[in-house]
Amino acid sequence: MKRGTLFFALLLAVSIQALGFQNTQVDYDAVYRIKDEGFNNSQVMDIAWNLTDRIGPRLTGSEGLKNAYDWTSATFKEWGLSNVEVQPWGEFGKGWDVRKAYIAMTVPYYQALIGIPKAWTLGTNKLVSAEVVYVDAADEAALSEYKGKLKGKVVMLPTSIEAKTTFEADARRFTDEELDGMTKRNVSGGGSGWSASRIAEYRRAARMRNAAYELFKSEGVAMVLNTHRGGGQGTFFTSNGSRNDDSALPEMEIAPEHYNRMVRLVTKGEKVMIEADTKTSFHTKDQKGYNVIAEIPGSDPSLKDEVVMLGAHLDSWFAGTGATDNAAGSAAMMEAIRILKESGVELKRTVRVALWSGEEQGLYGSRNYVQNTFMNDKAPNGEWEKFSAYFNMDNGTGAIRGIYLQENEAARPLFEEWFKPFHEIGASTVTIRNTGGTDHQAFDGIGLPGYQFIQDPIDYGTRTHHTNMDLYERLQAADMKKNAVIIATMVMQTANMDEKMPRKPKVFENR
Amino acid sequence: MKRGTLFFALLLAVSIQALGFQNTQVDYDAVYRIKDEGFNNSQVMDIAWNLTDRIGPRLTGSEGLKNAYDWTSATFKEWGLSNVEVQPWGEFGKGWDVRKAYIAMTVPYYQALIGIPKAWTLGTNKLVSAEVVYVDAADEAALSEYKGKLKGKVVMLPTSIEAKTTFEADARRFTDEELDGMTKRNVSGGGSGWSASRIAEYRRAARMRNAAYELFKSEGVAMVLNTHRGGGQGTFFTSNGSRNDDSALPEMEIAPEHYNRMVRLVTKGEKVMIEADTKTSFHTKDQKGYNVIAEIPGSDPSLKDEVVMLGAHLDSWFAGTGATDNAAGSAAMMEAIRILKESGVELKRTVRVALWSGEEQGLYGSRNYVQNTFMNDKAPNGEWEKFSAYFNMDNGTGAIRGIYLQENEAARPLFEEWFKPFHEIGASTVTIRNTGGTDHQAFDGIGLPGYQFIQDPIDYGTRTHHTNMDLYERLQAADMKKNAVIIATMVMQTANMDEKMPRKPKVFENR
Repeated sequence: MKRGTLFFALLLAVSIQALGFQNTQVDYDAVYRIKDEGFNNSQVMDIAWNLTDRIGPRLTGSEGLKNAYDWTSATFKEWGLSNVEVQPWGEFGKGWDVRKAYIAMTVPYYQALIGIPKAWTLGTNKLVSAEVVYVDAADEAALSEYKGKLKGKVVMLPTSIEAKTTFEADARRFTDEELDGMTKRNVSGGGSGWSASRIAEYRRAARMRNAAYELFKSEGVAMVLNTHRGGGQGTFFTSNGSRNDDSALPEMEIAPEHYNRMVRLVTKGEKVMIEADTKTSFHTKDQKGYNVIAEIPGSDPSLKDEVVMLGAHLDSWFAGTGATDNAAGSAAMMEAIRILKESGVELKRTVRVALWSGEEQGLYGSRNYVQNTFMNDKAPNGEWEKFSAYFNMDNGTGAIRGIYLQENEAARPLFEEWFKPFHEIGASTVTIRNTGGTDHQAFDGIGLPGYQFIQDPIDYGTRTHHTNMDLYERLQAADMKKNAVIIATMVMQTANMDEKMPRKPKVFENR
Repeated sequence: MKRGTLFFALLLAVSIQALGFQNTQVDYDAVYRIKDEGFNNSQVMDIAWNLTDRIGPRLTGSEGLKNAYDWTSATFKEWGLSNVEVQPWGEFGKGWDVRKAYIAMTVPYYQALIGIPKAWTLGTNKLVSAEVVYVDAADEAALSEYKGKLKGKVVMLPTSIEAKTTFEADARRFTDEELDGMTKRNVSGGGSGWSASRIAEYRRAARMRNAAYELFKSEGVAMVLNTHRGGGQGTFFTSNGSRNDDSALPEMEIAPEHYNRMVRLVTKGEKVMIEADTKTSFHTKDQKGYNVIAEIPGSDPSLKDEVVMLGAHLDSWFAGTGATDNAAGSAAMMEAIRILKESGVELKRTVRVALWSGEEQGLYGSRNYVQNTFMNDKAPNGEWEKFSAYFNMDNGTGAIRGIYLQENEAARPLFEEWFKPFHEIGASTVTIRNTGGTDHQAFDGIGLPGYQFIQDPIDYGTRTHHTNMDLYERLQAADMKKNAVIIATMVMQTANMDEKMPRKPKVFENR
């Protein structure tokens, strides 16, 4: 060997080491086995069917979510996973279910309305018949003019929701151009956040809503009606009531067309009557929240104390069956760990799956889990040191098209390499961008690598997110299969790296 | 004048006469006045609002349709129209309304279902709770295995309806290419109609449905559930019950996602329970059907006995408010005659508007009207001789893009000329093709010119046609204005022609 050649070979070796080349390497044998199990023996749609059609809505604290805890933990045990646990994360503090949801317009003519009680509100507990009053007050003075006029009435507030005819498809996939655009960091040139006037307007509107609600309570209205975005055409969005305790008024969310018809009628001087019969029940027995946890113990004695996690939130809203939000993610994660177990691929580190609850109310399950598991009060503990990375899925049913680096450039070489076997199914985009709104943030928030995937939107934003039509039909079977396979691969690669997943610098030092 | 010039001038005059030039001429002064009234003082959306939001569903024989007879005839009188009449066309023979429509799944979990009783079926008349049985029988022998097992049950039959996620928009407009394609006659190279095997399969399926229904009756089921096309996502299609008399069973139509969820649950062995409380009422007082008629008398003494008609069906299905089918057409026709009256344009012939009923059950209103008005038994009468043409609208809310010649080439020069002032709003296509399925066929069927327009589809076929979501929101205000203006113009031009509208040859001689 010539001296010059040796020099370059050494330089190359050093460079490869510095770039973490040993970590990026794809284990093509394992990937083949994961693909084989995930594409040829998939159970993901059966899992999703159980979570949606069979178990139904899974609001945190509801009977449905309890059934989901039971079924998912039993299923994990059946698959031979270890350390299966329905693990309390703390007090959720409430439990509630809908027992009856009937509402109809009776004057000027009969037509049943599409609607459901808002979360944690009271039912009417009998068939009530009441006139509709449209409370359109610009300020507190205008509001006070309704005093003495609302007892026993059904009240409606102005809404900006319209159910316009759409000339665009509900469902779509990202184009190559959009995916390419996503690889660029968004750097704002202007100030961030809301303007002072927008904040003032927001506060004024909140104050008015609050004043209106206090008036409705003191007057003794029969019911408060609302509508919300959700796509229209019979689809409506579910949300919380104005108050989340058992002193709340009966409140219902109804389809925007049905809401706006009554607004138009009343504002044009027509009398509108409603009949409604709703029942809700508050559970007091066990108000704790739980996460469902299971593991595949690591095979490498020196690495098995280190953990790679995958997870998704199991809880949902309740007007549909939470198919895309988030039976899709839960089923993908369950299927991913089933694939890892069933395919028998080597996993040096311990792999742990978590199905969270309370996500919809503020990532409660995951935030409490990371606090309980990785922290001693405000300082990271030994488990924090031994943690590698967490993978989350909560963007609906759409195919994974890539991953968000959550601004940590150090992970780029890994994911760029690991996604190579999935270019064939359209997943190749690695973006420096952050994404938020779900459970990976609990990990990211304490300096642990938490990742969420780029997924095709399908009809998540237009039709399914938190709506009554978030049902089994909306799940895309081919996408669901792909997602479980990709997630299983990412977890396998992470579990078998020489090092743990690179972290962002100094999260605790900076605090 | 040179001799040669005179010859060509004479030739030109003869040619013009032969081509009916005097008839095709656009009266631009009148068109200007019609556009001014229709675009600047439009009442079309207010009319449509009254028919939909305020009056509501208008099933033939229902209270809603009676209210619509009253309001439309009063409105015609208010506008100063002549000979306003709510004119009986014969016995419709039934009258029916929904008084209550509540249905929910209660096991495996509670969720209210989107649904309504099928037309002319019975209600449960109390809150019933029943198990769901999925009756999936390939033949009569398989059906007989359900004997003795259905009493008090809710039964469901197999359906091919799916509520798939759509990657295409609900609503669309015709492209220039589509409109151009429409100008060509469809000439089939093959045989027409269904194949013998398809007919046999259709008959077999009908026989099985009938046998199943007879079994359900003899067993005493609590309710028959159905679903039907309609778009999904909370939208469902309304239809008749299996029997249209007061011995019918309670039958309900529900949203396809809700139907298919129960099919999936039951076929996978899960117990499903329903609770339902429905009421319907049959009216026996007056079972006649009516058309609402009004006129602007012709101004020309020699032509005022001749009639030009415009019309649309006023009746609708009842799960929504029949906005696009056919408050849209009724409102356009009402607005068109209002524009003609209000703008004061000359109308030599008498212009008569008709709002039909019973269209949805078989063009009863228009067919009886033409029989009663233009025929003595099987022979045409004097009114038939004096009739010029009828214009109909029943393709939803979409903008008029042109007209169907109903295969009569003789009308082409007229419409090609008359549409010229509307090229500016996208209406220019004149097609030789036939179009069917609505009231112009009643006229066409007895050899009278009956026309229907080409309209942009918007979401008629995908979302609104006969569905619970055929509501005011689906009406396109700008299109509605355009349509009334175009129709008013076609009527004005027809009313003022030298001759009556050319007819197809020899309809009665050929019989």
